[in-house]
Amino acid sequence: MRYLYHLPLSPFSRKVRLLLAEKRLPFELRVEKVWERRSEYLDLNPAGTVPTLLEDGGLAIPDSSVIAEYLEEAYPDTPLLGRGHPERVEARRLAAWFDGKFHAEVTDRLLGEKYMKRLTGRGNPDAGALRAGYAALGPQLDYIGWLSETRTWLAGSAISLADFAAAAQLSALDYIGEIDWRTAPAAKEWYARVKSRPCFRGLLADRVPGITPPAHYADLDF
Amino acid sequence: MRYLYHLPLSPFSRKVRLLLAEKRLPFELRVEKVWERRSEYLDLNPAGTVPTLLEDGGLAIPDSSVIAEYLEEAYPDTPLLGRGHPERVEARRLAAWFDGKFHAEVTDRLLGEKYMKRLTGRGNPDAGALRAGYAALGPQLDYIGWLSETRTWLAGSAISLADFAAAAQLSALDYIGEIDWRTAPAAKEWYARVKSRPCFRGLLADRVPGITPPAHYADLDF
Repeated sequence: MRYLYHLPLSPFSRKVRLLLAEKRLPFELRVEKVWERRSEYLDLNPAGTVPTLLEDGGLAIPDSSVIAEYLEEAYPDTPLLGRGHPERVEARRLAAWFDGKFHAEVTDRLLGEKYMKRLTGRGNPDAGALRAGYAALGPQLDYIGWLSETRTWLAGSAISLADFAAAAQLSALDYIGEIDWRTAPAAKEWYARVKSRPCFRGLLADRVPGITPPAHYADLDF
Repeated sequence: MRYLYHLPLSPFSRKVRLLLAEKRLPFELRVEKVWERRSEYLDLNPAGTVPTLLEDGGLAIPDSSVIAEYLEEAYPDTPLLGRGHPERVEARRLAAWFDGKFHAEVTDRLLGEKYMKRLTGRGNPDAGALRAGYAALGPQLDYIGWLSETRTWLAGSAISLADFAAAAQLSALDYIGEIDWRTAPAAKEWYARVKSRPCFRGLLADRVPGITPPAHYADLDF
């Protein structure tokens, strides 16, 4: 069996769940409480982060961007990076944008301060970080809206790693009720299309102990 | 002509310079003062970071990890990721380690606080960040030493992206005199081997206005 070590609200874990499901690769989820720094897990992934994919044959693949490249090479039937150099550069550029810039400026500040700090006993949310996160979210939603209106999907005419990287960040924030979709109609239209794909069902069925998502979280017609 | 927009002490720019030189791809350097947020540059790379590679035909490739994947696909003659899945996973895992964890825990704290803050007029170094950076450097050098003694090169028996990612971070820190090589003999032996390669010559010839590197910086027998 293929296992994915994850945390339910980790956007990087969510990205890999979407990629696996879109490529129709069966897997089982295993929750990994990374703050416990379990030695068996550190053997699989010395960085101690989630996700880590463990293949049936024993190959352990840490880091969501490393997993994405591996899945593209090992299971090329449903290509998620495009074919030519310009398409692949653009899909990877945007995946790096959402994994890096969006996560640092928005997700880490909002989800990190409000949820992960409490979960790992690191104190109360920092008000300045929350303000900066909210200030960065608007322009990011505008950028997603602009890309999706210009190109159908974020990186071009086909759905790609870029869409899943962005949707993973947004879905984690949406679970804790941090996205006001009324302010971003173009991004909402794109997100509704991603959310309606079969690969998204697992994420929409998630329930995290102690946090009830808003009613629209799992609603395909939100 | 192929252009690389860079900053001399940016470890990510240095990584791409090493990859281009190792693959014997000619290029010209253009210094990009990213804090000026030049609109022509933001057209090439909306994230506004260095490096960005501009190919002869006009294709702009931002982000050092996106550039690394592009170079591997476009110029496969000197492979720097290995052939099989396990080798490629390990080379990418370690590249992500040095780009992410090493940079955040060490380079960003030491180079960022001591040099980039002054360059961009953002005040004085933060003493706590410097202490944390020094504390993280030792274990990182031990890890590099352990990997290189176990495997010849960091990811296995052949030189790979992992070695260039690590050497890029270390070379930027070495330029500002932050590495005490006497404390890390195994990492030093590995670094001496990387540094002796022809691809490293450009980095060793670098001189940044206002900062003279220590005498050993360009010395192959340090």
